[in-house]
Amino acid sequence: APHLQNFFAYVDSHQEEFIDRLRKAVEIPSVSGDAAYRNEVFRMGEFMATELKKLGASVQKRDVGTQVLNGQTIQLPPIILSTYGTDPTKKTVLVYGHYDVQPALKEDGWNTEPFKLVEDAQHRLNGRGSTDDKGPILGWLNVIEAHQYLGVDLPVNLKMCFEGMEESGSEGLDELIIAEAKGYFADVDVVCISDNYWLGTKKPCLTYGLRGINYFLLEVKGPSRDLHSGVFGGTVHEPMTDLTLLLSKLVTPNGEILIPGISDDVAVVTASESSTYNTLDFEIGELEEAVGSKTLIHDTAKEALMHRWRYPSLSLHGIEGAFYAPGEKTVVPAKVIGKFSIRSVPDMDPERITELVTHYVKAEFAKLGSKNTISIRCTHGAKPWVATPNHWNYVAAAKAVKYVFNVDPDYTREGGSIPVTLTFQDALGKNVLLLPMGRGDDGAHSINEKLDRSNYIEGIKLLGAYLHEIAAVQT
Amino acid sequence: APHLQNFFAYVDSHQEEFIDRLRKAVEIPSVSGDAAYRNEVFRMGEFMATELKKLGASVQKRDVGTQVLNGQTIQLPPIILSTYGTDPTKKTVLVYGHYDVQPALKEDGWNTEPFKLVEDAQHRLNGRGSTDDKGPILGWLNVIEAHQYLGVDLPVNLKMCFEGMEESGSEGLDELIIAEAKGYFADVDVVCISDNYWLGTKKPCLTYGLRGINYFLLEVKGPSRDLHSGVFGGTVHEPMTDLTLLLSKLVTPNGEILIPGISDDVAVVTASESSTYNTLDFEIGELEEAVGSKTLIHDTAKEALMHRWRYPSLSLHGIEGAFYAPGEKTVVPAKVIGKFSIRSVPDMDPERITELVTHYVKAEFAKLGSKNTISIRCTHGAKPWVATPNHWNYVAAAKAVKYVFNVDPDYTREGGSIPVTLTFQDALGKNVLLLPMGRGDDGAHSINEKLDRSNYIEGIKLLGAYLHEIAAVQT
Ligand SMILES: [Zn+2]
Ligand SMILES: [Zn+2]
Ligand SMILES: [Zn+2]
Ligand SMILES: [Zn+2]
Repeated sequence: APHLQNFFAYVDSHQEEFIDRLRKAVEIPSVSGDAAYRNEVFRMGEFMATELKKLGASVQKRDVGTQVLNGQTIQLPPIILSTYGTDPTKKTVLVYGHYDVQPALKEDGWNTEPFKLVEDAQHRLNGRGSTDDKGPILGWLNVIEAHQYLGVDLPVNLKMCFEGMEESGSEGLDELIIAEAKGYFADVDVVCISDNYWLGTKKPCLTYGLRGINYFLLEVKGPSRDLHSGVFGGTVHEPMTDLTLLLSKLVTPNGEILIPGISDDVAVVTASESSTYNTLDFEIGELEEAVGSKTLIHDTAKEALMHRWRYPSLSLHGIEGAFYAPGEKTVVPAKVIGKFSIRSVPDMDPERITELVTHYVKAEFAKLGSKNTISIRCTHGAKPWVATPNHWNYVAAAKAVKYVFNVDPDYTREGGSIPVTLTFQDALGKNVLLLPMGRGDDGAHSINEKLDRSNYIEGIKLLGAYLHEIAAVQT
Repeated sequence: APHLQNFFAYVDSHQEEFIDRLRKAVEIPSVSGDAAYRNEVFRMGEFMATELKKLGASVQKRDVGTQVLNGQTIQLPPIILSTYGTDPTKKTVLVYGHYDVQPALKEDGWNTEPFKLVEDAQHRLNGRGSTDDKGPILGWLNVIEAHQYLGVDLPVNLKMCFEGMEESGSEGLDELIIAEAKGYFADVDVVCISDNYWLGTKKPCLTYGLRGINYFLLEVKGPSRDLHSGVFGGTVHEPMTDLTLLLSKLVTPNGEILIPGISDDVAVVTASESSTYNTLDFEIGELEEAVGSKTLIHDTAKEALMHRWRYPSLSLHGIEGAFYAPGEKTVVPAKVIGKFSIRSVPDMDPERITELVTHYVKAEFAKLGSKNTISIRCTHGAKPWVATPNHWNYVAAAKAVKYVFNVDPDYTREGGSIPVTLTFQDALGKNVLLLPMGRGDDGAHSINEKLDRSNYIEGIKLLGAYLHEIAAVQT
């Protein structure tokens, strides 16, 4: 593949220009979760539009209305739809990414200014958004630019969808995707999202699954106002007592979910799935390091990753309405809301989960003999997602990995959810691939977020090689 | 008792002057819990000192140092020690009260300005501090004033101890009492505290018991930082799971404490104690009204009051470190601290309680098979208090009640604790009486706090009559 050799050589020799583009992007603090930064999110959207136009891509900035944030009604940043190439003889790849970032303040503990891109002695490019997700989205632009300078046509048509609200609920995105499924996105063949991470720090991966989530609020209500435990303790059914008992019946200290029937729909581990775990670049010690303690439930990386990726889990997040501050307060809370969620996996169904949980919690409450009242509802349900990793989209990506890194990729899943993945799959009916650029230790939402120089540069090669392999693969 | 008849007539005909004194006091917003109001607490201390000096009492303002509040180091308000009469042939009565108040803002829902004394159509004197505790402390001053105008000597020596930090932990008070037990307080014969309430709204009471308290913090620690439940759910022992399980093993929905041995030291109900419950001015409906719901554990007032006053109770107050805000957050809290307390009764001992709780919680945790670590400590222990209501202090008070109200008082206890009660009893070795002025529905710490005009006026008579009965009673 002589084209690719030239492309790789170009990328290697123009590293500083690509890093400069990332530097400019990181310097725009496009924090979507804080109304005070909303102008910066718009500025970042404008930056993307301008860069795309300079490259000759067509650009639409879609206005998706307003939101209420920090008590004010403010404009949502535009979703940028961009097309590069419309050759009907080529395949069309839709790529998605986001140009907004998580909040960051130097005083949170950053070693460097968060909104300056600073390369350190280990060649890490430090800065908010470097890996999540400005490095990856600029990766696509760098691929286009390199091909233009080399006078080589992109082997596929590229459609790009870049949003500015990913870190804050992707407001307006699902509606747009669904509305444009038969419109702007009609000719899309496959989807590629570069917004996650390698499992470890050494080996690239393709990610083919995400867990779903059912988030529950369990409310127990008794007195009409908070009471003093001295005056009323011993005379009333206390909502905290009931709630604590109910929460204690949901999951064991070993993570076993106690809701009858909940695991009935969990897909059986096949031999071929099981074998993918054997070659993963991951040691149990890395997980211990990530949690910062020796409190893992499982002894082997395989077991731990299976429980992160392909088995359900239930976590108790907290209680609203009870005393939460430091110190002592002798309150009997009148109304408390327990918060917990279940991470779901194929073939669990969000509605069935809600049904099982509701039935069980009500039955357990009935056993308590309390005069308080409960209500439970699922406030948010998202299906698990899993793609078939032998689809040609994955086959092409695996070839690209092999070509750039000279290694077969890990096949990974993630424990969390990236809701847009499922929206693309369901609304467009096309295969979706998660193709990460950064490493597992990039610290996407933490202090000192970074993207290694090599991950950025080899990542640009990977994205370009992927497009070539897509063009070449037999479908 | 012609002296008392004249005294009562004087009180009746000088109601407006006494209410005026209370009005001036209420207009000083002596909120001890907020540094911004500290000057007002000092102003209120000065008001008390000035009024006492005008009446010819000797006054010491005791400086008890500084505290840190709202991040600033500020001066504690003075404890006012005042003596009226030093005749060695008379008995000496120590009275205690507090001149600070709870916070109050009109926008909390008050019908009137909280720091204005407003009499409504039902002759309720509305205002923060009216019943807690400015009405009662001014009651003593009104008694002195009335006797002076009538040219009648007080039949006892009065020592007064008025503090300005009761609503905020009584800082410095215990130390002062202990230090002055053989000094300023050496000649005290009995103690009278007017800082609680009738059980209901119609019948006066003498209060002879308070529950103690052991407050516990139970910490469960796992990961070194909060985790994302998507990424880590299912792989680590979650501290919230362990904590919830432990808290669920402490008490049943019916209020039964599950800690083995905890009830062994609870005093047996004697026939004479049991009979005191039969004449109480209290209906179960009043308790339902107070909690604002039909969620009481017991069906009769007697059972309910016994569980408020003379049986222990355990309340779960809340959890520090978990998610507590409205909305959804998919956090796995790394370190959580459960807060609960046990209200104790004679003859339970705080140290024994801590021992039993600690042992039980550790044993239950060991059963969980979790790799997390726990620690439990009792941060605050106060003994229960009970006085012998056939002491001459109580006999005198009962006679005074009968004289003023023409009814035998209820003998009540309270579920909460007023720590100074026990300090006086233990440090001075004298009998302590709680002699309330206000009604059970005064709303001491709520919005629309009030003191009924009749309770204030008859209360002044009661405090005066009590001093006369103290002087007359055979000891
Ligand atoms: Zn992202
Ligand atoms: Zn992110
Ligand atoms: Zn008080
Ligand atoms: Zn109070």
